Amino acid sequence: MTTYSLLIKNGYVCTASDFYLADIAVKGDKIVAIAPEIDPALAERVIDAEGGFVTPGGIDAHVHVDEPARPFGNLSDTLQSASKSAIAGGTTTMVAFVSQDSADPGEESFAKVIKEFQDYGGKDLYSDYGLHMIVSKVDKTLLEKQLENVTDAGVSSVKMYMTYPGLQLRDSDLMTAMYNLRKQGITTMLHAENGDMISWMIDSLEEQGKTSPFYHGVSRPTMFEAEATNRAIVLSQTMDNPVLFVHVSAPEAFKRINEAQTEGLPVYAETCPQYLFLSEDRLQNCTHGDADSFEPAKYICSPPLRTSEADQAAVWLAIRNGTVTIVSSDHAPTMFDGEDGKRAAFKNGHNGEFRWIPNGLPGVETRMPLMFSYGVEDGRISVQKFVEVMCTNPAKLYGMYPRKGAILPGSSDADLVIWYPSGKYTGPATIQNKNLNHNTDYTAFEGFPIKNWPRYTILKGKVMYQHGKVLEETAGTGDYLKRGPSSLAGPQNKWLNQWRPHYT
Amino acid sequence: MTTYSLLIKNGYVCTASDFYLADIAVKGDKIVAIAPEIDPALAERVIDAEGGFVTPGGIDAHVHVDEPARPFGNLSDTLQSASKSAIAGGTTTMVAFVSQDSADPGEESFAKVIKEFQDYGGKDLYSDYGLHMIVSKVDKTLLEKQLENVTDAGVSSVKMYMTYPGLQLRDSDLMTAMYNLRKQGITTMLHAENGDMISWMIDSLEEQGKTSPFYHGVSRPTMFEAEATNRAIVLSQTMDNPVLFVHVSAPEAFKRINEAQTEGLPVYAETCPQYLFLSEDRLQNCTHGDADSFEPAKYICSPPLRTSEADQAAVWLAIRNGTVTIVSSDHAPTMFDGEDGKRAAFKNGHNGEFRWIPNGLPGVETRMPLMFSYGVEDGRISVQKFVEVMCTNPAKLYGMYPRKGAILPGSSDADLVIWYPSGKYTGPATIQNKNLNHNTDYTAFEGFPIKNWPRYTILKGKVMYQHGKVLEETAGTGDYLKRGPSSLAGPQNKWLNQWRPHYT
Amino acid sequence: MTTYSLLIKNGYVCTASDFYLADIAVKGDKIVAIAPEIDPALAERVIDAEGGFVTPGGIDAHVHVDEPARPFGNLSDTLQSASKSAIAGGTTTMVAFVSQDSADPGEESFAKVIKEFQDYGGKDLYSDYGLHMIVSKVDKTLLEKQLENVTDAGVSSVKMYMTYPGLQLRDSDLMTAMYNLRKQGITTMLHAENGDMISWMIDSLEEQGKTSPFYHGVSRPTMFEAEATNRAIVLSQTMDNPVLFVHVSAPEAFKRINEAQTEGLPVYAETCPQYLFLSEDRLQNCTHGDADSFEPAKYICSPPLRTSEADQAAVWLAIRNGTVTIVSSDHAPTMFDGEDGKRAAFKNGHNGEFRWIPNGLPGVETRMPLMFSYGVEDGRISVQKFVEVMCTNPAKLYGMYPRKGAILPGSSDADLVIWYPSGKYTGPATIQNKNLNHNTDYTAFEGFPIKNWPRYTILKGKVMYQHGKVLEETAGTGDYLKRGPSSLAGPQNKWLNQWRPHYT
Amino acid sequence: MTTYSLLIKNGYVCTASDFYLADIAVKGDKIVAIAPEIDPALAERVIDAEGGFVTPGGIDAHVHVDEPARPFGNLSDTLQSASKSAIAGGTTTMVAFVSQDSADPGEESFAKVIKEFQDYGGKDLYSDYGLHMIVSKVDKTLLEKQLENVTDAGVSSVKMYMTYPGLQLRDSDLMTAMYNLRKQGITTMLHAENGDMISWMIDSLEEQGKTSPFYHGVSRPTMFEAEATNRAIVLSQTMDNPVLFVHVSAPEAFKRINEAQTEGLPVYAETCPQYLFLSEDRLQNCTHGDADSFEPAKYICSPPLRTSEADQAAVWLAIRNGTVTIVSSDHAPTMFDGEDGKRAAFKNGHNGEFRWIPNGLPGVETRMPLMFSYGVEDGRISVQKFVEVMCTNPAKLYGMYPRKGAILPGSSDADLVIWYPSGKYTGPATIQNKNLNHNTDYTAFEGFPIKNWPRYTILKGKVMYQHGKVLEETAGTGDYLKRGPSSLAGPQNKWLNQWRPHYT
Repeated sequence: MTTYSLLIKNGYVCTASDFYLADIAVKGDKIVAIAPEIDPALAERVIDAEGGFVTPGGIDAHVHVDEPARPFGNLSDTLQSASKSAIAGGTTTMVAFVSQDSADPGEESFAKVIKEFQDYGGKDLYSDYGLHMIVSKVDKTLLEKQLENVTDAGVSSVKMYMTYPGLQLRDSDLMTAMYNLRKQGITTMLHAENGDMISWMIDSLEEQGKTSPFYHGVSRPTMFEAEATNRAIVLSQTMDNPVLFVHVSAPEAFKRINEAQTEGLPVYAETCPQYLFLSEDRLQNCTHGDADSFEPAKYICSPPLRTSEADQAAVWLAIRNGTVTIVSSDHAPTMFDGEDGKRAAFKNGHNGEFRWIPNGLPGVETRMPLMFSYGVEDGRISVQKFVEVMCTNPAKLYGMYPRKGAILPGSSDADLVIWYPSGKYTGPATIQNKNLNHNTDYTAFEGFPIKNWPRYTILKGKVMYQHGKVLEETAGTGDYLKRGPSSLAGPQNKWLNQWRPHYT
Repeated sequence: MTTYSLLIKNGYVCTASDFYLADIAVKGDKIVAIAPEIDPALAERVIDAEGGFVTPGGIDAHVHVDEPARPFGNLSDTLQSASKSAIAGGTTTMVAFVSQDSADPGEESFAKVIKEFQDYGGKDLYSDYGLHMIVSKVDKTLLEKQLENVTDAGVSSVKMYMTYPGLQLRDSDLMTAMYNLRKQGITTMLHAENGDMISWMIDSLEEQGKTSPFYHGVSRPTMFEAEATNRAIVLSQTMDNPVLFVHVSAPEAFKRINEAQTEGLPVYAETCPQYLFLSEDRLQNCTHGDADSFEPAKYICSPPLRTSEADQAAVWLAIRNGTVTIVSSDHAPTMFDGEDGKRAAFKNGHNGEFRWIPNGLPGVETRMPLMFSYGVEDGRISVQKFVEVMCTNPAKLYGMYPRKGAILPGSSDADLVIWYPSGKYTGPATIQNKNLNHNTDYTAFEGFPIKNWPRYTILKGKVMYQHGKVLEETAGTGDYLKRGPSSLAGPQNKWLNQWRPHYT
Repeated sequence: MTTYSLLIKNGYVCTASDFYLADIAVKGDKIVAIAPEIDPALAERVIDAEGGFVTPGGIDAHVHVDEPARPFGNLSDTLQSASKSAIAGGTTTMVAFVSQDSADPGEESFAKVIKEFQDYGGKDLYSDYGLHMIVSKVDKTLLEKQLENVTDAGVSSVKMYMTYPGLQLRDSDLMTAMYNLRKQGITTMLHAENGDMISWMIDSLEEQGKTSPFYHGVSRPTMFEAEATNRAIVLSQTMDNPVLFVHVSAPEAFKRINEAQTEGLPVYAETCPQYLFLSEDRLQNCTHGDADSFEPAKYICSPPLRTSEADQAAVWLAIRNGTVTIVSSDHAPTMFDGEDGKRAAFKNGHNGEFRWIPNGLPGVETRMPLMFSYGVEDGRISVQKFVEVMCTNPAKLYGMYPRKGAILPGSSDADLVIWYPSGKYTGPATIQNKNLNHNTDYTAFEGFPIKNWPRYTILKGKVMYQHGKVLEETAGTGDYLKRGPSSLAGPQNKWLNQWRPHYT
Repeated sequence: MTTYSLLIKNGYVCTASDFYLADIAVKGDKIVAIAPEIDPALAERVIDAEGGFVTPGGIDAHVHVDEPARPFGNLSDTLQSASKSAIAGGTTTMVAFVSQDSADPGEESFAKVIKEFQDYGGKDLYSDYGLHMIVSKVDKTLLEKQLENVTDAGVSSVKMYMTYPGLQLRDSDLMTAMYNLRKQGITTMLHAENGDMISWMIDSLEEQGKTSPFYHGVSRPTMFEAEATNRAIVLSQTMDNPVLFVHVSAPEAFKRINEAQTEGLPVYAETCPQYLFLSEDRLQNCTHGDADSFEPAKYICSPPLRTSEADQAAVWLAIRNGTVTIVSSDHAPTMFDGEDGKRAAFKNGHNGEFRWIPNGLPGVETRMPLMFSYGVEDGRISVQKFVEVMCTNPAKLYGMYPRKGAILPGSSDADLVIWYPSGKYTGPATIQNKNLNHNTDYTAFEGFPIKNWPRYTILKGKVMYQHGKVLEETAGTGDYLKRGPSSLAGPQNKWLNQWRPHYT
């Protein structure tokens, strides 16, 4: 009788700090032993990873999919289609968003939409998933109870917006929210761009007839992102509440975050591949109102793609020097061509004005291969740093560690990705949308040369994807993850207690 | 027949860059010659300033007095009483505030309140005065025309608030305002504290029963001032519009302003004596709800007095290193003892909660002597720096130069202050409210030792004050000053034109 | 027959990124398996670490001991006595220093002193050890060959001094050295204090008769350390050569290092417990020339103990925010009481002038317990950070990874320390010199309360120390370690190639 | 009988802070009255400056000319020829350099070379001049007395070098020097580049055969200047001794200086036109060893011309934001074509290696017109800022104020320059060497378009230059100026007294 269900032999085990040659034995869901030269006869299945790298399964902590309430418009991926896309790209856990129903004010209202989301999308999944709660309306009297229910539902993070009409919260609402989030140990995520400034700019540009996609970027300059980031750090300091900035893109914002981190404040940053690989030139050369030249609409996201290679270099540097805590995709897919044959952005009676173009790019499938190719193989980051920002830190930040994001016998789920290096690599040489599994008709990275793509993606001990194919029969392996509090550094409890001594 | 109406002999002439021995000849309103050894026989009156310093008359560019519309509550000084107080302290020009009537939306509405103010308070004045316009409601369609009328009325500066319910403007309104102010060359003044954050803090402190004056300071920490300052600098950069920050008090705010100035941005700062001489300890030791221990209420101002001597040292440093452009008083007097014998802050049915205590200290009369004593005589600043921040820069910043704030034959009004140095000084040794001319029953600087006080204050060639007494018969010498555009560095016209090419 | 020689059960395995419950199986020298619930029957010896923490053995990368050439004076520890002290404090690997013999100019001269050191001190050791080479004279024509021999001897790091007469190198010599070190992948260690400035200060203080120990600190202010640090960073950038700053103590130096790291430069920092726990007050209250009040002489080290608690807090912050790469002891013991009964510093005909007092404190034994007690148990740093700076980073920086500094089955030596938490801790409650194993008559930390001390220290699978006692019979287990190149980030190869294209 | 010897009517009087319309009356050497509409009948000569600007005569505080001791090689200008060149360009006072004779160690040795210089060059001058003393060897026992003699001789400033073999001082020598300079109130001037680093680079480049002029710039990168600047600021802080950095060129150096100034340290900066107008490209395209393509040798100066327009913009910004205290020429002329028809740099048996090319550009004549044209007329700086950095600050910094650098009736010499604005300007449209009065065969600014050039230069009431011509008969008007202590902010007396209480 065999002892192990799966044995991965001869690979380099990669963790956030270590890199070493060993075999990994799996039994059922779990990693159960790491040792050199485990006898293959003990395992039902053996994968020879000789010369390969074994990393934890990727965690993409920023994924938007279709929701019952759909406040973002019609996103083209369901949770199920996104989970397939994720697994094909080496991501074994996604954290998706569920949105507060602003019209429903009750104490149970937050928990209700979480439940609805799970019922709506949580079937036949290929990856595990968790949920972040988006709070867009703060009711001081209800919030504490609403959040308690959120924690009970296994959701340990709340995202809030400093921009977007309808979502944007005032500073005082953020304070009320942070006060309660801190009390319950819920992680605060912020989209930091100054919404008032952006709205003014959009209006002004429209008055001037400047509505083509290029002006999307003009309306949201880096200094608006840096401003909101600075303001949020002050809020965080005031309330002694840790903050994670989502999708940071501006060099000035990284600078400010780095300063806060250097001072010892519990401030964290996420960035996304689009800010490392794409820039403003993608938004150019669009004839206003001409659907046939509407290619730039594919690249609309917020914050927008930034100007130059120097901006991209600043993001790489922020990863290398530790300012960036996690790298996520901000997956937010919409069909470029509408069902009716018209460009999506021309729908709804609009004439292609950038204000109405759905924000967001697809990216859950390409995140891991892009970062491994351009980061690890091109020497920009070590493989340990890759594991740290793609796997371990998301798990720690969002309360999934050590079950997820690590390779720890006895503690970690057997979520593993096996990569083979240049000489042994047999996968695709470029990114092509036709090979992707998401439900979208384009990728922003079409034609990008890559040096690696996972050969195996393993979720809870089960091979889900191998040699370029998702194994359809594994649908349903993915489950909902109840998450606990963050294990990264928490509140410092200093300034706050000067004015509120009994608050800890 | 004499050639000159007044001759000041043997004094050291002090300007923003120079310091030299010469005689100053005056004819009527104007300085008409500077030369060594002008024949005293040529003058109707001769003042021997031997061993003395002759500076331009002080300009106090931040003075609140009673207005017809009175949005600040009952200020105890009228324009007339304040002008007497000013002249007694060596200030020959005040710039006071007139407030938008938010209920009156017409194109003429701004000009109307200016006219009303002049009619209401502009009689029998001892000093010249100009007016700043406070804008508290931005109507995009009316603003351009409203501001044109302001310029026509000789008001070339507009003040806006980032705090105070009722006055606070959103970032987008500030952008609309700045856009129009820049077009018309009007100087932008900002009270930079984050109003949302402060309101939340006040509510929170009240919920905890923390309402004694000490908590006024707690509710407005330095980081809230620094935050708003940073945000306003981003607005200024976006709109390519110069900004003057009024009453800057926080070390972090000075740091941010200095950084912007170092980058070459047209950003200016005002500070006030209270931030140089007083600190938080004035707000302590008040028993809640006990009118007899209500002394701390005298020291309520916004931004609040800061914590420590280190904070005061940071303000002195900001003057020395050029971050501070002007020093004003922020004169805003209210009676401490009410007519009914009750402490003012206990009026209106309130029980002394800090939220309801009128903000502001009197200070128009003590500004020049304090700065001369502790700045010049104690060696913290040179006499040139004194003239620069007290006289010349306010004149340049607010469009009164070279008529005011300078000692230039042919160009400047004969507004002069004569100081005698330590050996020859015969004035008071301490500040005492009983000696002051304002209409208030206390000074925040009671008992402060001083080393100097003006012996003569001269306005437009007329001796208004000498040897400790305002000459009553000179009432009416003071006039309204129509001001033009600022002569300090203006917009840089860079970033803005990237998105709005035809806007210059 | 048993499979494992040693099994550690039920402990929390602590690595630089992870913390998890598992058993660790050892066979001979090596860790051979990590898994939950390994059968104790398989092991010759089982240690139950339930509730305990298992960390890698500590690496103290900065240890001075007696050398044949003895350029530092008579250090009281031999390599052997220091190795015993190390093992008793949880340190399984030391890196000691061997000094260039400046009088011997040959190509073989560096290798020769290495060989002499090994012959002289390398017997009956309790811990493993490696060697750094101190270069105090740069011969441009010989250096390349001299360094090749160093590498061959397993020494992969060179230390140079910017201070101390006789050791101090000029900037141009540092450039020649760095040029060659970079070519051979040898790690550069620098003592960064400005020697010229310090010498001037010492002379000046002596002229004034200020020679008591307190003036040692006065002669070496933090800005002299920061200056040299900045200069060395410029040298590092110029030569594209990574640099490790030893024993960094000045807040301004940490700031400058952090800036360089943020820019992505390969700059590393070491600090020592004395800068975290001791301050200048230890140097006070010494009567000049009075041997009986000469207690302060015990605390003379360079850089000197800094002024205040704020300085200590800055060092803790530098550890937390990642500026500090490693924490070492800078163990440099001398007897306080001489053999002749006189204070050591009064020897040699000197009268206790601080210039002649031997620099350095003992510390190899107390480093791990102090950092575990005040760092991990008091919540200043996580246990992962403890492992990172005390074990893993020293191993990576100095080319001993993954054999040392990690707990990796198949790759790492079984160098382990077992700690028991508060409830189960049975060791001493304070540090007392009488309990220490070094050959010195005092510890600078006498009486310091501690919360933990290792219960077991294991070197290469052998229990060397347990329950407060070094097992004498294990003498000789320690060996010389040949080290390879650093595995931390190396040269960036940018600026240098602008002027020297063929140099890589 | 007339009252005034000269009357300048209707011009705009320009000072460091003011700009106003007035007439200036001169009697003999002095300005004796400023007033509007002085009667022309009272003056012997009247110059109508209507529409023109009247500035103080320029002060060029950094001029190298031929000396008896000639340590810099054969400079082609004598003091006399330079004074003519100065006056033709609107400069009425030069401060030249006299060099310590290192071979002569006596107490009188400094005074002796000053006397020799005056005897050697001080005849038939067109401009006034003062002298700086260059100290290249510090003798601790003699220095105090040597410097006393310097002060007695009217030399109140000492220049020292951190680079150049033979001149370079060690940090400890700088400390000894600063200690004594401070005691005597002598201004410290520093050439801040790291000489050790540069020497190493030159050797290294030569070994690689990289000796063409382009490599001069490569050998002295901006970070070497910034390093020395930082080190000198630490020295200045240590010794509490003000420092003026000569010819600052590196953006990083300006940044460091600005930081020190912001902290309130008495640190000053000089820059030169070559860093505003020229860049590295001038050094390119020279065939090694080919005298006919040796044009780049004309542009060799130290610090070298910097890389890009961004570097030049940084210097302009440093002028605008106040980091730069004075702008001088660093006039150091050598003939490009030797007497023997060979390029100067090919002399002395050298083959054109950059190491041997004389450093320095001519520039005393072009400084004022370039700065007025590109600064004032092109709107980069105000005319007040022009006067401040070209006239007033040099006078204050070097102890010539208010006699020089200002327009103050009764106090200032009648040293004046009259400029006519665009519409009335009748001078040359470009700079051409054939029109210049220096004794050099090229100008680095050949062909530069200019918008203005002085029409009149007046020294001590005498018109020396008008309408493009120096009036030969005025030779001898220029005199030696005995200078006093600096009137800019001096030592702060803080840190120093911690260790040397009786030193003030």
